Amino acid sequence: MPEVIFSVDQTLSMRDQKIPGHNRWHPDIPPAATVSPGAEFRLECRDWTDNQIGNNDSANDVRDVDLSHAHMLSGPIAVEGAEPGDLLIVDILDLGPIPQPTSDGSGSGWGYTGVFARDNGGGFLTDHFPDSYKAIWDFHGQMATSRHIPGVRYTGITHPGLMGTAPSAELLARWNAREQALIDTDPYRVPALALPPLPDNTLAGQLAGEDAARIGREGARTVPARENGGNHDIKNFTRGSRVFYPVHVPGGLLSAGDLHFSQGDGEITFCGAIEMGGFLDLHVDLIKGGMEKYGVTTNPIFMPGNVEPRYSEFLSFVGISVDHTTDTNYYLDATIAYQNACLNAIEYLKTFGYSGEQAYLLLGSAPIEGRLSGVVDIPNACSTLYLPTSIFDFDIRPTADGPRKTDRGRCAVTS
Amino acid sequence: MPEVIFSVDQTLSMRDQKIPGHNRWHPDIPPAATVSPGAEFRLECRDWTDNQIGNNDSANDVRDVDLSHAHMLSGPIAVEGAEPGDLLIVDILDLGPIPQPTSDGSGSGWGYTGVFARDNGGGFLTDHFPDSYKAIWDFHGQMATSRHIPGVRYTGITHPGLMGTAPSAELLARWNAREQALIDTDPYRVPALALPPLPDNTLAGQLAGEDAARIGREGARTVPARENGGNHDIKNFTRGSRVFYPVHVPGGLLSAGDLHFSQGDGEITFCGAIEMGGFLDLHVDLIKGGMEKYGVTTNPIFMPGNVEPRYSEFLSFVGISVDHTTDTNYYLDATIAYQNACLNAIEYLKTFGYSGEQAYLLLGSAPIEGRLSGVVDIPNACSTLYLPTSIFDFDIRPTADGPRKTDRGRCAVTS
Amino acid sequence: MPEVIFSVDQTLSMRDQKIPGHNRWHPDIPPAATVSPGAEFRLECRDWTDNQIGNNDSANDVRDVDLSHAHMLSGPIAVEGAEPGDLLIVDILDLGPIPQPTSDGSGSGWGYTGVFARDNGGGFLTDHFPDSYKAIWDFHGQMATSRHIPGVRYTGITHPGLMGTAPSAELLARWNAREQALIDTDPYRVPALALPPLPDNTLAGQLAGEDAARIGREGARTVPARENGGNHDIKNFTRGSRVFYPVHVPGGLLSAGDLHFSQGDGEITFCGAIEMGGFLDLHVDLIKGGMEKYGVTTNPIFMPGNVEPRYSEFLSFVGISVDHTTDTNYYLDATIAYQNACLNAIEYLKTFGYSGEQAYLLLGSAPIEGRLSGVVDIPNACSTLYLPTSIFDFDIRPTADGPRKTDRGRCAVTS
Amino acid sequence: MPEVIFSVDQTLSMRDQKIPGHNRWHPDIPPAATVSPGAEFRLECRDWTDNQIGNNDSANDVRDVDLSHAHMLSGPIAVEGAEPGDLLIVDILDLGPIPQPTSDGSGSGWGYTGVFARDNGGGFLTDHFPDSYKAIWDFHGQMATSRHIPGVRYTGITHPGLMGTAPSAELLARWNAREQALIDTDPYRVPALALPPLPDNTLAGQLAGEDAARIGREGARTVPARENGGNHDIKNFTRGSRVFYPVHVPGGLLSAGDLHFSQGDGEITFCGAIEMGGFLDLHVDLIKGGMEKYGVTTNPIFMPGNVEPRYSEFLSFVGISVDHTTDTNYYLDATIAYQNACLNAIEYLKTFGYSGEQAYLLLGSAPIEGRLSGVVDIPNACSTLYLPTSIFDFDIRPTADGPRKTDRGRCAVTS
Repeated sequence: MPEVIFSVDQTLSMRDQKIPGHNRWHPDIPPAATVSPGAEFRLECRDWTDNQIGNNDSANDVRDVDLSHAHMLSGPIAVEGAEPGDLLIVDILDLGPIPQPTSDGSGSGWGYTGVFARDNGGGFLTDHFPDSYKAIWDFHGQMATSRHIPGVRYTGITHPGLMGTAPSAELLARWNAREQALIDTDPYRVPALALPPLPDNTLAGQLAGEDAARIGREGARTVPARENGGNHDIKNFTRGSRVFYPVHVPGGLLSAGDLHFSQGDGEITFCGAIEMGGFLDLHVDLIKGGMEKYGVTTNPIFMPGNVEPRYSEFLSFVGISVDHTTDTNYYLDATIAYQNACLNAIEYLKTFGYSGEQAYLLLGSAPIEGRLSGVVDIPNACSTLYLPTSIFDFDIRPTADGPRKTDRGRCAVTS
Repeated sequence: MPEVIFSVDQTLSMRDQKIPGHNRWHPDIPPAATVSPGAEFRLECRDWTDNQIGNNDSANDVRDVDLSHAHMLSGPIAVEGAEPGDLLIVDILDLGPIPQPTSDGSGSGWGYTGVFARDNGGGFLTDHFPDSYKAIWDFHGQMATSRHIPGVRYTGITHPGLMGTAPSAELLARWNAREQALIDTDPYRVPALALPPLPDNTLAGQLAGEDAARIGREGARTVPARENGGNHDIKNFTRGSRVFYPVHVPGGLLSAGDLHFSQGDGEITFCGAIEMGGFLDLHVDLIKGGMEKYGVTTNPIFMPGNVEPRYSEFLSFVGISVDHTTDTNYYLDATIAYQNACLNAIEYLKTFGYSGEQAYLLLGSAPIEGRLSGVVDIPNACSTLYLPTSIFDFDIRPTADGPRKTDRGRCAVTS
Repeated sequence: MPEVIFSVDQTLSMRDQKIPGHNRWHPDIPPAATVSPGAEFRLECRDWTDNQIGNNDSANDVRDVDLSHAHMLSGPIAVEGAEPGDLLIVDILDLGPIPQPTSDGSGSGWGYTGVFARDNGGGFLTDHFPDSYKAIWDFHGQMATSRHIPGVRYTGITHPGLMGTAPSAELLARWNAREQALIDTDPYRVPALALPPLPDNTLAGQLAGEDAARIGREGARTVPARENGGNHDIKNFTRGSRVFYPVHVPGGLLSAGDLHFSQGDGEITFCGAIEMGGFLDLHVDLIKGGMEKYGVTTNPIFMPGNVEPRYSEFLSFVGISVDHTTDTNYYLDATIAYQNACLNAIEYLKTFGYSGEQAYLLLGSAPIEGRLSGVVDIPNACSTLYLPTSIFDFDIRPTADGPRKTDRGRCAVTS
Repeated sequence: MPEVIFSVDQTLSMRDQKIPGHNRWHPDIPPAATVSPGAEFRLECRDWTDNQIGNNDSANDVRDVDLSHAHMLSGPIAVEGAEPGDLLIVDILDLGPIPQPTSDGSGSGWGYTGVFARDNGGGFLTDHFPDSYKAIWDFHGQMATSRHIPGVRYTGITHPGLMGTAPSAELLARWNAREQALIDTDPYRVPALALPPLPDNTLAGQLAGEDAARIGREGARTVPARENGGNHDIKNFTRGSRVFYPVHVPGGLLSAGDLHFSQGDGEITFCGAIEMGGFLDLHVDLIKGGMEKYGVTTNPIFMPGNVEPRYSEFLSFVGISVDHTTDTNYYLDATIAYQNACLNAIEYLKTFGYSGEQAYLLLGSAPIEGRLSGVVDIPNACSTLYLPTSIFDFDIRPTADGPRKTDRGRCAVTS
């Protein structure tokens, strides 16, 4: 087990750790630790909401979640010798849930998938599912099951949803400008088009007072993926993965968090992976001048891990960029196409007895693949959703006999 | 080898076959053959352009292609007993290029990938690559190499780009209405937002005279994927796949064509697969009333084949929904995110000596995967492109030494 | 399609082709064709018995097969510049059954699996299954089904069972000496310990008269794998494979045949693959002096293909080197351990309603894996047999409910 | 994390734990714990030798190992309601090395591979490598590297080498009888043909005095696999595996140990996996009367895990049942054929600069596959060894340029 260089007492808030983490992107958040190229180390992580969600049968906590706390990141970690223009190599050696039971029962053996309400973040299908829902998952080694979605059992492709380097001041300013410009096109939209800096509940590592307040005013929210990596939510970013991050500030300032026991491509339920706290073992190294050498000027590149479960059989759902309710055609819009693929999968699963909400929670958390299958055949983008058939303990394939419909319980809802 | 129920003499145009195929979707195109549920049979196919593209080193033919001929489909095939509301099961037993050499050298051992010019269809990255380009591929069993893109060699995931059932008159009318409405939002756009019915060069099977002319006026163009399947261009729709198509007219009226020796997810170069004529062996069956039984009311569902090459190592490129040139942010737009992932991959490949055009042609035709990785992290969609490293005969991974840049020739261009 | 350099008229015996093949290994059989390094070409092949087995429901033809005709090989092919000490690179580009129907119905869409009688070759479990049995398989693209073994359907990993280079005179003499020495230890054993040269029914390519008679007296039988490759029966030696053969004579003299639509590891039924005639597309090249360069002094090395079906779920059977009937322990004997793994699998399959003969034929032909799991834990070797669960159309896994036993028909037997 | 029901203080010998384990098979060793069907629990395990081997650069400890201590097993665990004739279902939920550093530095981040000297157990190739050798491996998450075998890095398929149920008294008597009969055929052989009961260093759980002494006189050694499972050393018996063990005594009495971070098929170096102490998380259940229901009368059956690394490219070595040194032919002996495949691989690796000992240690520990490819082609069995090419950080494939030979250090040897 590598040395723990960022430790978390899971009975305490991230704010009350000896060395707290952070929940905004800003170049001036000081490093929590410094390592050399070649180092291997462990980060301990809180769940992304700082434990606002409980192991129970009500979705009220999901409905009432305060997203200004998100995401609780472990770091930043400075890498000696890293300079702007370098590529920071990060290998994911291992990760997993909190190994030891905690006195408050947090973590250690369970996680959750949630759908946010439309007026509190929403989700990919918020027009169809505007309320809050939740499923609790129990871990059995690398397998997960849920009392809220019976009949499925699958191996997680465990990964950090969020990892990245700090932006430079100049890059941060560009982020804030372009996202505000987007918000300004429809400032009262629900859900919002983007999330501007928000001082409330900002955590700026070891900074306090005016230094911390400035981070709150300037720091980028951690919700989207950006040029520094960030919340890329890439389902195959698992054990054995190697990622190459652009370095924008001296030391690189690597942070990570938002651990997912499992997630489907797209993380369509927003809080859609199986969320958990846990540990993350990393190895780091540098390619000096790597950004120019390899033409990596905007986003990171990575190599996915080779120890994920490989499925041989899928049931695949097709969606195209048409609103079938209103017969409205969109131009090569892969997002709408994927929404339709998801809706088609949900309708299909309902014929087996699942509720739409259960099916939605399942597609957000199970290792489904979302593919951009056709993006040039005007006017219709074609997206496809690949659902592994073996995650079900019954035969999910279409047959002449029709589906085996049965009572499949219900997920957690609000009261 | 199953019985050939739709035969093609590859030295003749599809228009001059004993029983010609068709290039529009319309319920009134009469079946070319009728089979029983349970039947296995072979369709022979022209390449989608009816052989407008030659095995040479000029992209002039791609520049000058007449798309009103597209796509040359084999069929329709009526299935006895198929009625609206059924699901038509189609198994892809086998497919491949034209087995025997033809006197005009068409097919039989080679295919092509093209990028259309902006004013003649364009492609996914037409703003960056507005001209016409071409690569010729030679087949070596299931492997392909190209004199226009040296240093790569890969196994094709061979598939029909286009397959589907006939629309009902009512469904066809809805297609035409919604696509015209889209065109009307920007009628002079180049490339066009959608392609309305076009009488020029319509081929309506065995119909002639006014019957054929009516197909030309009413028939939907074959370019996009729609509720009937259509040009879904799904790269994994290969040997061993089983698809379930909605039946909209008596007999189902199945047609297929646009064979691809290989294609990347998205078919980003538009004419982007390795295009070819060839043969397609199918098995069909029915699920009576299957649309309602399984909630398949819009798009088909399918099960991909299990005999495709499986790659273990990928280099993956991330894109987000930002125009990095103008620092403009788009809201959860997976199409723009995938464009950026593609552009990032192209910049990367250029550091090894490929031209941008070569890299673009490669990404359209090689078995890359395009994933919808994050579609909820407002405001940025995150799409990822997975490039298998083993298709290159040199090491494509980033190392401290930097890329091995060398002269890698050039693709076919226009004169 | 590459040029056919060894053509077979499937309505005629291999003996009556314009340029016949051969069925013994000998350096003096003259080449049927000569190619350059880098060439791609097609060989057409008879089934290994020269069509002694018919598509019918009797195993009499298997019982009465005359093995002195085996194996009917296509070749030899000389490679220009190949010299002793080189490695001959052979790529398997493609292969498959006879593409066109033949007037006698041979090949083209079906194959067979047989178990030989104990007194005519026997098989791996001849002590348990001493008679002759047969199953006919129908091909559906790359899938196979059998009226004699209902309930299974699988994708073949198609491969040539036999390929190799000609031995030098010196190597041939060593083979004959060491095999005769083995025979001499128990000359009257049934089945025989080895097969010495046999003039009866020898086919020596274009040689005739005394030249051919000498081949009959001296030529090695083609049954075993030897230093030249030979009948290695490696199930994963499929499309995309590259093999490196030692060159023992000028020109290398490559021959191939014994095409298998599918086979399990071990080919336990002896005539155990799904046997067929067909075609084989190859590419050849040379590594000059490769035997010394790479230390390849005895057997060939190879790289298996990457387009075979990959299964995700197996039911695995363990066997150890004990005769459980007599409670006799053998010392690290992996062969006996594998026999037990096979017998355990057969007993298991019988609980679902298959006869032992059906199960035996299935294990010989389906893509099972046979592993040497433990070979050092004295005194017991441990071999394991991996049976893919998805080849069955019912659930083959053990459950608390017990197996779903039903009438599963019967295989072809003798009369 | 499931409850620890068998705990080990890694600073103490297995003999000094509060509840010690055992190192012989015997029905009268009392259970260390009892669980219900459906339970999930953790076993902590010592390395199989009880920590006789150190993290250093000398193989003296391997040479001098006292095998009478082996294997140190955790258990037995009684399962309520298990009766003879049942099948005991065991799921491997998770396992790994010792999570926390221990004061004596044992475990926690490293493991070892050893070759025993011929006069102390030997190994698969003891005629060629009669001395003792050792390699130390460092763990990096699921990856392993070795200072003794530079240039390789691979993901372990971690598994327990040894697991099984207790034999009945009657079964134990049969084991002892048949193994003694084998020994009696050559009682002075080195290495021994089998290992009879040995009172020295017997550990019988909580038994002491005459009770323990009787276990020493009667108890079966744990070295081989037998009808109860035992030391089956199956490399794919990893996370997600489900095994079905015959129950021979009330409660089943499950024990496990001999954890392997990685192992090649065959575990050819005998002490050939990467050996370590650690933890093992299991789930158990029962199929009442399962032995008869499913015809499982001798050996267990199992389903391998689906989270192991899957390799796409292999270099494969063929071996046949011939002693090439003496030109002696053996009859269908898959063990000799696999020895030759191993020797061929070693000769090949030597051309890249490895010593034969390094190559031997590598093949024992890396995830190589050993296949029974042909077992019926008289007289030659054909075994094949599949070496994944991607475990090397250089190109291991044969090319016209020849191998890149360089100094690759050395393994630990004796002094």
